[in-house]
Amino acid sequence: MAGRVDFYFDYISGYAYFAWLSIQEICDRRGAELGVHPVLFAGLLDHWGQLGPAEIPPKREWAYKDAFRHARLHGIELACPKVHPFNPLLALRLSLREVAGAEQRRLVSAIFRAGWGQGIDLGSRDELAAALDREGLDSRALIERASAPAAKEALRESTARAVGRGVFGVPTIFVGDELFWGSDRMDHVELVLDGRDPLDHARVREALDRPRGADRRKVRSEGTC
Amino acid sequence: MAGRVDFYFDYISGYAYFAWLSIQEICDRRGAELGVHPVLFAGLLDHWGQLGPAEIPPKREWAYKDAFRHARLHGIELACPKVHPFNPLLALRLSLREVAGAEQRRLVSAIFRAGWGQGIDLGSRDELAAALDREGLDSRALIERASAPAAKEALRESTARAVGRGVFGVPTIFVGDELFWGSDRMDHVELVLDGRDPLDHARVREALDRPRGADRRKVRSEGTC
Repeated sequence: MAGRVDFYFDYISGYAYFAWLSIQEICDRRGAELGVHPVLFAGLLDHWGQLGPAEIPPKREWAYKDAFRHARLHGIELACPKVHPFNPLLALRLSLREVAGAEQRRLVSAIFRAGWGQGIDLGSRDELAAALDREGLDSRALIERASAPAAKEALRESTARAVGRGVFGVPTIFVGDELFWGSDRMDHVELVLDGRDPLDHARVREALDRPRGADRRKVRSEGTC
Repeated sequence: MAGRVDFYFDYISGYAYFAWLSIQEICDRRGAELGVHPVLFAGLLDHWGQLGPAEIPPKREWAYKDAFRHARLHGIELACPKVHPFNPLLALRLSLREVAGAEQRRLVSAIFRAGWGQGIDLGSRDELAAALDREGLDSRALIERASAPAAKEALRESTARAVGRGVFGVPTIFVGDELFWGSDRMDHVELVLDGRDPLDHARVREALDRPRGADRRKVRSEGTC
């Protein structure tokens, strides 16, 4: 059983860069199909009413430090994009299957590497074009396709489909219908892909179905007065 | 250099349970001092304007599955508390240094084990009392102290001090002034405690000081229309 993996990402996330580096090898080693889905993280946050790490100052600082420590310990080249957060729309639209076609994985790798490995401004059309050209891709044709209404619509649809599957953050990896959030559970991803999921699904279902016993607002007000 | 570690937690978090199991051994092996700080997670969420994992349905499901997989793979006994979320105020107040005194670590271990190892209702006064009694602790005297106004005030202060240090989630571990969120970076905690922090602090400072290039609301509206 080769299996099917879906990878949901936004270039805004350094953890998506880490996950991208591993997920391709995990899939290729097994001959598993890899679906690559750019989504707008800002759209996910809006849908779920959540803040991103960059919107809580100490969490932003923690995330940077954590990413740099992780990169150093695992020998990963890391240089944050020149500007962060940046407007990722063009980079994401370029990365759609509908735009990049058969070059999709090569293009996504080129953009991740240019932004998170080398630190270009991923919100800049000119710097993106240069990164694609360096990779031998036809930046002019790609940017033209990415700027068409169909590409804008395709990114909106990709984000909406992700929300429909329960994607609340990036990166998110699905193995079949099992969701994995973040870049830290590649061991779980591999086990599930190999048909060796350590999870007792009945037990987790029972735990999820237990009654909710407290409401945050009530606890909070009891704790403060 | 033995170092100083501070552990901030709320029993509401299964990841706090995992972190509690490791942090004690990490400190004891090095003779590092371990400060143990119960805080009200609901208060942190309110302060930072954030949602907890249990408040986003697919994130709640993911967190349960992830915790069960992690526990199974690492041989950790895990049974979710009978009711979740629950009102953690009494359990947290019992766990204050001001209430538990020299028995603080023993008491915290007893409550974590009873709730996350064996699945009692951590919001129930009677079940908490029984868990303390089983551990040979004087539940009657402890609950009396935990119910006094001074204990309520001490938990509020503990939560406020945590916010002041930038704590945005639980568990949070400080090694000196370095913040670590979650239970997955114990390798980083150990390196920093051993004076072998892999982080280039100047480089991360430079990255943090870069300009912000985009505003989520603007990107979102450009992406949707």
